[in-house]
Amino acid sequence: MKVLIVGGGFGGLNAAQGLKKADVELLLIDRANHHLFQPLLYQVATSALSSSTIAVPIRAILAKQPNAKVLLADIVAIDKEAKQVIVANGDTYPYDILILAPGASHAYFGHPEWEAYAPGLKTLGDALHIREKVLLSYERAERCTDHAEAEKFMRFVIVGGGPTGVEMAGAIAEIAHKALTLNFRNIKPEQSKIYLIEGLDQILPAFPKELAEKAKKNLESMGVEVLLKTFVTDITPQGVYIGERFIETPNIVWAAGNEASPILTSLDVPLDRSRRVIVQPDLSVPGHPEIFVIGDAACSYDKKGKPLPGVAPVAIQQGQYVANLIRKKIPVDRRKPFKYFDKGMMATIGKAKAVAKMGKLQMSGFIAWLAWCFVHVLYLISFSNRIFVLMQWLYLYLFNERRNRLIVFPVSEREEPLHEELDNSKSPTGH
Amino acid sequence: MKVLIVGGGFGGLNAAQGLKKADVELLLIDRANHHLFQPLLYQVATSALSSSTIAVPIRAILAKQPNAKVLLADIVAIDKEAKQVIVANGDTYPYDILILAPGASHAYFGHPEWEAYAPGLKTLGDALHIREKVLLSYERAERCTDHAEAEKFMRFVIVGGGPTGVEMAGAIAEIAHKALTLNFRNIKPEQSKIYLIEGLDQILPAFPKELAEKAKKNLESMGVEVLLKTFVTDITPQGVYIGERFIETPNIVWAAGNEASPILTSLDVPLDRSRRVIVQPDLSVPGHPEIFVIGDAACSYDKKGKPLPGVAPVAIQQGQYVANLIRKKIPVDRRKPFKYFDKGMMATIGKAKAVAKMGKLQMSGFIAWLAWCFVHVLYLISFSNRIFVLMQWLYLYLFNERRNRLIVFPVSEREEPLHEELDNSKSPTGH
Repeated sequence: MKVLIVGGGFGGLNAAQGLKKADVELLLIDRANHHLFQPLLYQVATSALSSSTIAVPIRAILAKQPNAKVLLADIVAIDKEAKQVIVANGDTYPYDILILAPGASHAYFGHPEWEAYAPGLKTLGDALHIREKVLLSYERAERCTDHAEAEKFMRFVIVGGGPTGVEMAGAIAEIAHKALTLNFRNIKPEQSKIYLIEGLDQILPAFPKELAEKAKKNLESMGVEVLLKTFVTDITPQGVYIGERFIETPNIVWAAGNEASPILTSLDVPLDRSRRVIVQPDLSVPGHPEIFVIGDAACSYDKKGKPLPGVAPVAIQQGQYVANLIRKKIPVDRRKPFKYFDKGMMATIGKAKAVAKMGKLQMSGFIAWLAWCFVHVLYLISFSNRIFVLMQWLYLYLFNERRNRLIVFPVSEREEPLHEELDNSKSPTGH
Repeated sequence: MKVLIVGGGFGGLNAAQGLKKADVELLLIDRANHHLFQPLLYQVATSALSSSTIAVPIRAILAKQPNAKVLLADIVAIDKEAKQVIVANGDTYPYDILILAPGASHAYFGHPEWEAYAPGLKTLGDALHIREKVLLSYERAERCTDHAEAEKFMRFVIVGGGPTGVEMAGAIAEIAHKALTLNFRNIKPEQSKIYLIEGLDQILPAFPKELAEKAKKNLESMGVEVLLKTFVTDITPQGVYIGERFIETPNIVWAAGNEASPILTSLDVPLDRSRRVIVQPDLSVPGHPEIFVIGDAACSYDKKGKPLPGVAPVAIQQGQYVANLIRKKIPVDRRKPFKYFDKGMMATIGKAKAVAKMGKLQMSGFIAWLAWCFVHVLYLISFSNRIFVLMQWLYLYLFNERRNRLIVFPVSEREEPLHEELDNSKSPTGH
């Protein structure tokens, strides 16, 4: 029996590993060659971790699973009648059972043109892009002779007050106030202005009010200006409009909205407003018990009828659940509904600052931060990554040393809209 | 007094650090934001090390040197009459003393069109480009239904048998035979063919014949075919021509020739055939005692009249020498000629395989490899990099684990000439 898995994120990978001992031919297709530990991606974007500590080749993970094949390819459509998926060059791959775990991408509320100026944070490429944007901005500021011009480059706007937005804002504040100390002569990075914009009346909307309030106070103590009940009305190459107000800056990070992978539309089944597939209680697609959708691409509900959040634990448990159904060859009419076991939620704001909620237990500060570190290291995919992440964190904690402040490519080779302002060209003058 | 240093490689950085206590205003300009430990760059290109272990922001290195400013900019010309350098956007920076350490780039013996198909290895960008090329090639081979087509993608040609070429060939052989074991289902990476092409009658031409012969045997035992007295006559998108013979492959690495930075031509002084400035015994430019050229950009001679090689120790000692002249304010007529203290040379072929020559002492095998590891870790710029390199080597040594097998960017966003063959597009299906 051919089981085809689309996507090597938390959902797809756990489904694959759950089928290790099953009598199936497994094919996992992803357009990246690596599994990415997305919860720590913001630390790559903010120079704290190197890419390889949170990304592992999918092939390496499944090397010792003989029933699993891995393919690097971009799927463009699913043909559920012919039971096959179609990749960009026209090749088709058949399946008996299909597990769709293609994840989500950023959504711009009907303004796709904003993406060029306000990149989101989903892939390793996104993280390196944002990292270079931030680092280049300080380089530009240092070269400015005009003070107002320099201030513009030292302004940062993060749109969206969920965990990613909060973590990015906190990390950029730490870059400005700690990592760059003594590095510049014409500018003072400590004078950077960081804005976090959230439409609702609290940041971290999924958290209890008190914890969200603590997180906000923490951010403010680090120099972040938190703007609640505030909506972005336009984003241009020059900056962000929030109603009448204009924040002039080239540094905008989008952490406000998600949209499931566009390949799901080819399923021709009902999607929710984030374009996720509204799945059956067994995570299958209505009318197609042989197609499952899991992770950020699925809209499923807990027992109270609340939609499950797009977080790693949901994807992991869904992957395991589906693998179990397949491995045990459970007939369609005897599948028990998927149940999510909620272990809690947590978000980090900065060094020794975090908030966490586990059941009725609420934590903040150093203890919550330790718990956050512990859980994240625990969920990393390989032993060596755990070691390398811990060591890089130790350096960061002890010396505020962000070891990955690298602008890899000359500006001219990148798509960066502002690159004409810096004059790097392809010919090396250094080294 | 204004001292302007061009380039933050070994030469420029040692000059800057040697002037820490001098009463000068120092400005270091580089187009990269980092100092790069080039001797280990091939290990980034072959997935063994992560970028941040061999690259350190120049600002961070000079953070605690108050007399030093750092600027990210691309210098396009030197105006020696007006005593200023000109950067790409037209800005000028004046100097009293100029230290030129802009390094070298690959040269293609009058065939600049080969660069697109046979990238060289000088910058972090180059290394990541080659890394992705190699990794993608195996991904393509795995997707081939045609066996001959797959073989093409599993062929690798390295042009140039100097240390870089030898190290690259050895590392690619280790990738094929060790790192990728069990990772593929349709292809056997062990069947890869690796060619090392050298025009002279021995690889490692600077080494004694016996050592070069040992290195060649080592490479052959690892599955590399070494072609001596062989010249590349053409390079196309399809492969390499060596006279009548054609090796069909998209995987070509250029390690055959260097050429000093093009900005040196604006000095309007005699250059050697590698376009390096033929410097005076005190490393200054003829007629301009206030302009020094050091490192790979300089053509200088040892006491026997032999030109000094383009290696890190020469650049380091030259940087220190020039800093000393400036710090001690030694008058032009009392400058003693630069003398290179040759500590020896070494090259590594693979795990526990290397050759080394120190004075009259010749070493090979495990001992030479240990010495190579020791020296390279010792010369790394920061303590944390030493730790992280050692740990990544430990993993490589114990588990053959190349932790950095990452294809970061979707193929469609790269300049890779063959990307139409893979079908990745910007829309993520994974994660």
